[in-house]
Amino acid sequence: MMNKLMRGMIFGGLAAAVVSGATLAGAAKSPANSGGAAKAQSKNLIVLIGDGMGPAQVSAARYFQQYTKGVKHLNLDPYYVGQATTYADRGEDSGKIVSGIVTDSASAGTAFATGHKTYNAGISVSNEDVSKPFASIIEAAESAGKATGLVTTARITHATPAVYASHVRNRDNESAIASQYLESGVDVLMGGGKQFFLTKDEKGKRTDKNLLPDFKAKGYTVVENTAALNALTSKNTKVLGLFGNSHVAYTPDRTPEIPSLSAMTSKALNILSADKDGFVMMIEGGRIDHAGHANDLPTMVQEALDFDAAFKTAVDFAKKNGNTSVVVTADHETGGLSLSRDNIYEINIDLWNKQKHSSESLAADLEAAQTTEEIRKIVTANTWITDLTDEEVTQIMNGDGSSYKREGAYNAVISKRLLVGWSGHGHSAVDVGVWAYGPIADKVKGQIDNTQIATMGAGILGLDLNKRSAELQSKYVYPKFKISRDNEVLYPAQALVKALGGTYTGSTSAAKLTIGKNTIEVDLTGKTAKLNSKAAAYTVDVDNNVLYLPLSAFNQLKGTTLTWDALSERIVLR
Amino acid sequence: MMNKLMRGMIFGGLAAAVVSGATLAGAAKSPANSGGAAKAQSKNLIVLIGDGMGPAQVSAARYFQQYTKGVKHLNLDPYYVGQATTYADRGEDSGKIVSGIVTDSASAGTAFATGHKTYNAGISVSNEDVSKPFASIIEAAESAGKATGLVTTARITHATPAVYASHVRNRDNESAIASQYLESGVDVLMGGGKQFFLTKDEKGKRTDKNLLPDFKAKGYTVVENTAALNALTSKNTKVLGLFGNSHVAYTPDRTPEIPSLSAMTSKALNILSADKDGFVMMIEGGRIDHAGHANDLPTMVQEALDFDAAFKTAVDFAKKNGNTSVVVTADHETGGLSLSRDNIYEINIDLWNKQKHSSESLAADLEAAQTTEEIRKIVTANTWITDLTDEEVTQIMNGDGSSYKREGAYNAVISKRLLVGWSGHGHSAVDVGVWAYGPIADKVKGQIDNTQIATMGAGILGLDLNKRSAELQSKYVYPKFKISRDNEVLYPAQALVKALGGTYTGSTSAAKLTIGKNTIEVDLTGKTAKLNSKAAAYTVDVDNNVLYLPLSAFNQLKGTTLTWDALSERIVLR
Repeated sequence: MMNKLMRGMIFGGLAAAVVSGATLAGAAKSPANSGGAAKAQSKNLIVLIGDGMGPAQVSAARYFQQYTKGVKHLNLDPYYVGQATTYADRGEDSGKIVSGIVTDSASAGTAFATGHKTYNAGISVSNEDVSKPFASIIEAAESAGKATGLVTTARITHATPAVYASHVRNRDNESAIASQYLESGVDVLMGGGKQFFLTKDEKGKRTDKNLLPDFKAKGYTVVENTAALNALTSKNTKVLGLFGNSHVAYTPDRTPEIPSLSAMTSKALNILSADKDGFVMMIEGGRIDHAGHANDLPTMVQEALDFDAAFKTAVDFAKKNGNTSVVVTADHETGGLSLSRDNIYEINIDLWNKQKHSSESLAADLEAAQTTEEIRKIVTANTWITDLTDEEVTQIMNGDGSSYKREGAYNAVISKRLLVGWSGHGHSAVDVGVWAYGPIADKVKGQIDNTQIATMGAGILGLDLNKRSAELQSKYVYPKFKISRDNEVLYPAQALVKALGGTYTGSTSAAKLTIGKNTIEVDLTGKTAKLNSKAAAYTVDVDNNVLYLPLSAFNQLKGTTLTWDALSERIVLR
Repeated sequence: MMNKLMRGMIFGGLAAAVVSGATLAGAAKSPANSGGAAKAQSKNLIVLIGDGMGPAQVSAARYFQQYTKGVKHLNLDPYYVGQATTYADRGEDSGKIVSGIVTDSASAGTAFATGHKTYNAGISVSNEDVSKPFASIIEAAESAGKATGLVTTARITHATPAVYASHVRNRDNESAIASQYLESGVDVLMGGGKQFFLTKDEKGKRTDKNLLPDFKAKGYTVVENTAALNALTSKNTKVLGLFGNSHVAYTPDRTPEIPSLSAMTSKALNILSADKDGFVMMIEGGRIDHAGHANDLPTMVQEALDFDAAFKTAVDFAKKNGNTSVVVTADHETGGLSLSRDNIYEINIDLWNKQKHSSESLAADLEAAQTTEEIRKIVTANTWITDLTDEEVTQIMNGDGSSYKREGAYNAVISKRLLVGWSGHGHSAVDVGVWAYGPIADKVKGQIDNTQIATMGAGILGLDLNKRSAELQSKYVYPKFKISRDNEVLYPAQALVKALGGTYTGSTSAAKLTIGKNTIEVDLTGKTAKLNSKAAAYTVDVDNNVLYLPLSAFNQLKGTTLTWDALSERIVLR
C-alpha cells in the first residue's frame, strides 16, 4: 500500500473530512536544531515522558492523591519549570491533510527525541516523500559509548520508545521497530509488546521469525515477570523485558507478576549506571494516554501516579548520583479532559477511587452482554454505583459510536457521575508541562517547544545529534512507495531521483531523470521508458500525476546496487 | 434572604445535586500566609489576571495569532515561570456543598489578592458563618501611601476587581462593592459596570442613590469613552472610567468609543506612576471568561489577545521604569475547553477568524427568530458558513438547555466545525499558568498555589497584609443572616457570639450566650429569651436547628452599639 498515515488518526471509523487549509506561519518551521556537540554538563540523562499527560491530567492526579492519601504534592511538583508546545508538522497525502496542529505520539516523540518536527505517524524520519532519518539522543549516546535504555508501560515497539531507536515511515510497522532495536545497541529494553517479537504461529504478529533467539545471541537476558526482573543484577548488561503480549497491564489490573514502572525504572538504572561512560534512558508512562483515549478517568489517574512514582525513583537516583540530569514532559494531552462538566462547580473526587478495575478489563464482557441485566451486573461489580438508571444502561448497551463501543459508553456514564468531561477519544493541542532536575533544568524552563527537549539534552551531554543524523542519512532513505498488482515495489520518481542527487524534469506526458551521465526518459502516456535512449523494461506507473518507477531504474541510473529493506520499508544506500 | 451562594454556581437552572463528600486533606488548608512586612525589592507591582484563561485558552490564542498574523509567540510567552493551583475552600450551606475544588472568580480572586482561600462567591472574607475580612495587596498598598488602580474589561464591580478593594459575603452584591470603592481610596478604577453606580430610575441597578456625584466630590474624574480617556493627564490623579453599562464590549464588537484593555492600562500607568511612593495595580482581561462561559471560541481568543496586548503595555512600562514587578495568572479555566474533538487530529484554525461578531451580540436576534430561515440568515451574516444543515438549524432553534439557550446552541454548532470541545458553561479545576517579570519572578516560579501571588507580591513590595487585615477585622464582621417576615435581620447566635468574644452553650431546646457579665438564655421551643434572667423581647428564630437572634440581643449582651450596614451586609464593630 502507499501509506497508512490516515490509520490511527481517525478513530471509530468516522469518515470525517478534515477541512482545514491551515498553514501555521512560523509555527510549521522547526526551531534551528542546535544539536552540535558542546561541553558536557551531565554524564547521564533520564528523560521521562507521560504519554497523554496534559495539564488537566496532572491536576487530576494531584487532587486524587490529596483526597486518597492526604499527600499534597506530586513528586513532580517541586520540579516544574515550564511548558512546551507540541504541534505536529503539517502532512498531506494526495491533497488531504493527515497531520496538523494536533500531534500524535510519533510526531511529538520525533520532536523531543531528535529535535525535528515531522508528520503524525512518522518515527524519527523527515516529513518528505522520500524521508531522511533523524538521529535520536539515544542513538547519539550509543555512538558516544554510553549505555542506553528504553522503559515503558506500553508496548516497547510503540511510538514513544520507537522514536529513540528506530526509523520508519509509519508507527504501525512495529515488527520493523522490534528488528531495528536488535541493531540499535540499546542495552535495556523494558515494556510490553512481546507479540512483535513472536511469529503469528506463536500468537505473535510477525510474519518472518521469532526475534528472541537473535536478542539472546546478542547477549540480551530476556525477562517476562517481576521475579525474573528482580533477579537481574548489574552484570546483566543487556536486558529485554517483555511484561505483556501487548501493553503492560494497567495499574488497577496488575498481578504481582507484572512490575510497576518504578520497579522497571529502578532495575534499569541499576544496570545502566554501571557503565563508566554514563547512560541515557527514556522512561514512558505509556498508558496514561491509553486510559485517556478510553476516557477512563480513574485508571488514567492511577497510571499518572505510577509515572509519578517512577519519576521519584529517577530523581532520587539523580540526586545521589550527582552527575545526572532529569527532564520530564508529555507528548500531548489525550481525551480533551476537563475537570468539571455540565455547569457544576465540583469534580466529585470522593468517587474517583471507587472502581476496582480499568474499563479495558470490562470491555469484552460488556460487548458480550446480551441483556440489560448483564450490563447492570458488570457495572455494579466494578463500581460504587447501586442506582444505575435505565437510561444509563441503555446508553452502555448502545455503545458510544466510536471504536470504544460499550467501553466508551461505560466511561461516559462514569465520567458524568465523576463530573469530568472529555471532548473525544483523540489527542488535543494544549501545551504540556515540563519538569526538570540538574543542569538541564535551566535549559528547558519557561515556554519552550518540545524539540528543545532533544537539543538541550544533547547539549547537556555534549552529544552531536547532527553528526549521528548524517551517518544515518548516508545509509538509508525512507520513501513513500506503492506495491503493484504484480507485487513490485514502485517509488515516486521525482522525489527519489532528487534524494539520490539527480534531477527530474517532466510534464504530465513525459519525464526525464538524470544522475551524472545517465538518463531515463519516460513516456507517461505510453507507459514506456528508455535508459540512455535504449528501451528499458521498467514498470511505469502514474498515480495522481505522480510517476512511479521500480528500484532497478534508479540503480541503473545511478550505477549502484541500492536494495529495498521490505520490513523497514527503506532503501539501503550502502 | 439567608444567602445566595448557590446563585451563579449552577447555570441553566439545572437542579443538579452536588453529591461529593470530599474533604481535600491537605489541600483544603491554605498555606501559611507570610504576609508580614519585609524589605521591598520593587516599588511598584502590576498584577494581571486573565479571567478564565486556562492552559488551552493560552495555546489557542498562540496558534490563532500564528495563523492570522504569522507571529510565533504571545507577548506573555517569554515570561512563563510556572503554574498555580486554583482550588476553592470547601463551602456548605445547610449540609449542601456549594463550593468545592472548582473555584469561581471570587474565591480565586480572594486567594491571589489576599493570600487566603475562601468559599465560592466570597469577596475577600473568610469561610465562616461570621466571616472576617481579609486585606488585599491593594488595600495594604493604600495604607502604605502608594497609588492604586483596578482596570478591567468586565464590570468594575465584578468579582476579580472587587476582591482587591471590597468585602462582601456575596459577589452578587455589586452595589455594595461600588459603594465600598468610594471609601477604598483606590485612585484609578476603569472598566464597565456603570449600572451599579446609577439608580433604577437611571437605568442602573441601585436602590439607594446615584454614586457618581460622591465620586466626583472625592476628586474623581469620571470618563466614559475613548476621547475622554485620552484627554486625561497625570494631573487627573483620581479617575473612574465606566466604559459600559454592564461589561465593556467584546473586542470584535467594540466601536471606537470603547477603549481596549491596553489603552486603559496605558492611561492608568501614566496616572499611577506619577505617585512618588509607587503604585500597585490589577489589570483584568475579564471577558476571556465570559466568552468561555458562552463557549464562543473566536471571541475568547480575541479577548485573550486583547489581554496579551495589555500585558505588553505593562511589561514595557516595567522595563523602562526599572523598579516594577509584573505578575500574571488566571483565576481558573472556563468552559472545559479542549483543542480538538470528536477523535479528529486537527483544530481547523483557518476557520477561527471567520466570524464578524461575538455570539453575545447575536443572542437577542437568535432568541427572537421565529423561523428556521431567520436563524439561517443570522448565522450566514455572521460567519463563513454557507452550508448550514437542517440539523444544525434545528439544534440552534432548540437551544442548548442551558441559560445560554440559542446562543449556546449556536456556539455548539460553530465549535463542532472549528473542532474544539467544551465540557459545559462552567469553570474547571485545571492548574493555570503564571508569568512574571522583575524581582517577583523568582518568588512565583514552579508549581505554586494562587495564594502565593498575594503573599509574594506583598513581600516584594514590603507590605504587611496581616496588619491591614487586623485593622479591617477590628471594624467589620460579615455574618450569614436571614430576614424575618417582619423584615427584621437575624443572625446565627452561636457563630456571632463567638465572633464577638463570648461563649455559647446549648441544646436543641435551650441556649445560653455569655459575654463578660451578661447572659442571654433562650428557650428554643417556646421562642422566648431572657437577658440576665429578665424577659427580653428579642425575636427568637430557629432554622435547621440553628438559633437566630436580632442585633439588639448582641448589643445588650456586649454592651455596645454595633450597627448593621444593610448595603454591605456587615456588622460595623466600631
